[in-house]
Amino acid sequence: MKIQGKHHRTIWTNPDGWSVEIIDQTQFPHVFTTATLKTLGDAAHAIKTMMVRGAPLIGATAAYGVCLYMREDPSDAGLEHACRVLEGTRPTAINLRWALAEMHAQLKNLPPEGRVQAAYVRAAKICDEDVEINRAIGSHGFDLIEQMARGKKPGEPVNILTHCNAGWLATVDWGTATAPIYMAHDEGVAVHVWVDETRPRNQGSALTAWELGNHGVPYTIIPDNTGGLLMQRGLVDLCIVGTDRTTADGDVCNKIGTYLKALAAHDNDVPFFVALPSPTIDFTIRDGLREIPIEERSADEVTKITGRTGDGRIETVEIVAQGSPAANYAFDVTPARYITGLITERGIIPAKREAIASAFADKIKTPFKKT
Amino acid sequence: MKIQGKHHRTIWTNPDGWSVEIIDQTQFPHVFTTATLKTLGDAAHAIKTMMVRGAPLIGATAAYGVCLYMREDPSDAGLEHACRVLEGTRPTAINLRWALAEMHAQLKNLPPEGRVQAAYVRAAKICDEDVEINRAIGSHGFDLIEQMARGKKPGEPVNILTHCNAGWLATVDWGTATAPIYMAHDEGVAVHVWVDETRPRNQGSALTAWELGNHGVPYTIIPDNTGGLLMQRGLVDLCIVGTDRTTADGDVCNKIGTYLKALAAHDNDVPFFVALPSPTIDFTIRDGLREIPIEERSADEVTKITGRTGDGRIETVEIVAQGSPAANYAFDVTPARYITGLITERGIIPAKREAIASAFADKIKTPFKKT
Repeated sequence: MKIQGKHHRTIWTNPDGWSVEIIDQTQFPHVFTTATLKTLGDAAHAIKTMMVRGAPLIGATAAYGVCLYMREDPSDAGLEHACRVLEGTRPTAINLRWALAEMHAQLKNLPPEGRVQAAYVRAAKICDEDVEINRAIGSHGFDLIEQMARGKKPGEPVNILTHCNAGWLATVDWGTATAPIYMAHDEGVAVHVWVDETRPRNQGSALTAWELGNHGVPYTIIPDNTGGLLMQRGLVDLCIVGTDRTTADGDVCNKIGTYLKALAAHDNDVPFFVALPSPTIDFTIRDGLREIPIEERSADEVTKITGRTGDGRIETVEIVAQGSPAANYAFDVTPARYITGLITERGIIPAKREAIASAFADKIKTPFKKT
Repeated sequence: MKIQGKHHRTIWTNPDGWSVEIIDQTQFPHVFTTATLKTLGDAAHAIKTMMVRGAPLIGATAAYGVCLYMREDPSDAGLEHACRVLEGTRPTAINLRWALAEMHAQLKNLPPEGRVQAAYVRAAKICDEDVEINRAIGSHGFDLIEQMARGKKPGEPVNILTHCNAGWLATVDWGTATAPIYMAHDEGVAVHVWVDETRPRNQGSALTAWELGNHGVPYTIIPDNTGGLLMQRGLVDLCIVGTDRTTADGDVCNKIGTYLKALAAHDNDVPFFVALPSPTIDFTIRDGLREIPIEERSADEVTKITGRTGDGRIETVEIVAQGSPAANYAFDVTPARYITGLITERGIIPAKREAIASAFADKIKTPFKKT
């Protein structure tokens, strides 16, 4: 999408033909800067420290991490090592494992001397596929928004609440939850986005607000506590969120706090949609609550925060009493029963096992585990 | 309660016999400092800027605000003026209006020369009554916690989630939601408190964590997004929150985000209790969603935050992109159907019209408005 009128993706190869450039998302919203990945270690570090984040972008970065290591050691052992290191960076997002499985399948039967080139080809294809998937999600979600706009008075926007950043910064381009919003805005359908701040890392106020603002989409930042009241008052027409992993039965694992918004939507008859690219579906599990590992991150993300001082310096401050213990679970699971529909690249489907299996029969490679 | 071993209330008169001392809660958790109120303007400013906050403490401060103005102008016009100025400071908490009505009723039939002394007597009594009410709430809530502790393995604490600060800093002493917790802890019943950060003003991490820590009660700060996951995982035994206004039908208006926790508690069969001193009941209204005005505060509270830098300076930083719009609703309403029970000074009662009316028949001064 656009930054100051210029089109960007979130990840690309440099003119040298091999090193990988990413937007360093840890500096948002204060500084826009990119970083160069030259080694497997660089890629793993970028994922682990959330210089890149968002399930699809994590997958794309992992794919390029394999490319970078193939330049160093294209042996079978090298391939296994790269996949193992990258898989250990973040436990929850399924795209990471999906992208590594894709890379592994592509490379394992090739002779080592052919692996570097094949890796870059597959990584670039993973990126392009992500863009195409998101464009398709956008187009299906657009129909939904346009239909809601028809029920509005002239000039009244469709009010959409989103949590965290399932925007283009979480993907290679377009975003998942934001793709329908960008398309509606670009087509002249009036939209306004309630942007959940998304504590503790503030991906909503730091990333989603930033990218919507740069693209010209009207938005308002709200504390994560606010969505319930807005829905009680009829100020939210629909919710669209992303997902880090969705089970075969339609349970949605997403940024911590998503579940609370789904409950409020359910209580107030507000449609709650999840934008779901198929690589985010984990066909091997069914019960999200029992089967998805939830990442626990450093308490520092809760107790400290970075911002701009009045005179423009970037400072990190501690916002709790010294020595206060804090817990930092990164995700929660929204049971399928609270989800109105899944906006996939193949259309909007119910969050139900049969619907998911039937829409993506060709993607199911692993049989269901017995539960 | 205790700060470094020394007992404090949150508001008291100075040795001069007339000026009023408060703990300045805007400096928490970084600085403990008090402020002196000498005029009606000082009292109104303290309430408006949240140097004092919490429904019961707001009421107590307003009562002393009337005292201070009676020293300047004890005429009928003076009494009306003081009540009007103080009533305009915060729109949601009912105790403010309750305390002003009490003061007004006490003073209006006295000759002006008798009003100063009578005002101080009544204000002191409002404070003492608050302490007694909270002690009684604590004792009823204690029974609840003790009963839960019996179902625990030895050494396993009862895990209690609370939102915002309904602690002793929100009252004159003991707190409402925290009174049962302090009593359990003091009686040797193992408790652990999940403290919701409570964006945007962080009263949980700044105030509740601070006071629990000073009293020695184990706690963990969590982002407001986290409680749903904890309840899904069985890590919360009960929720206890405070309230700024509760309707005759048992709808609870409390800090924004309370409603979301009540929904999660309901979805996971976690008991959800509200600690309710009777001055917080608004017998004149029934439907909290339609009848309680929700205060909207400055967007700055969402977009800026104050903390300690690594080298110990206190800095305020902006945490969103420059110019990002934000909305800041201070309260939401939890419908009575999601509330397991109200812990009042007269025992634990259902959040139902009949139960409230029967427990507090003597307190109902105003007939119900027709709805």
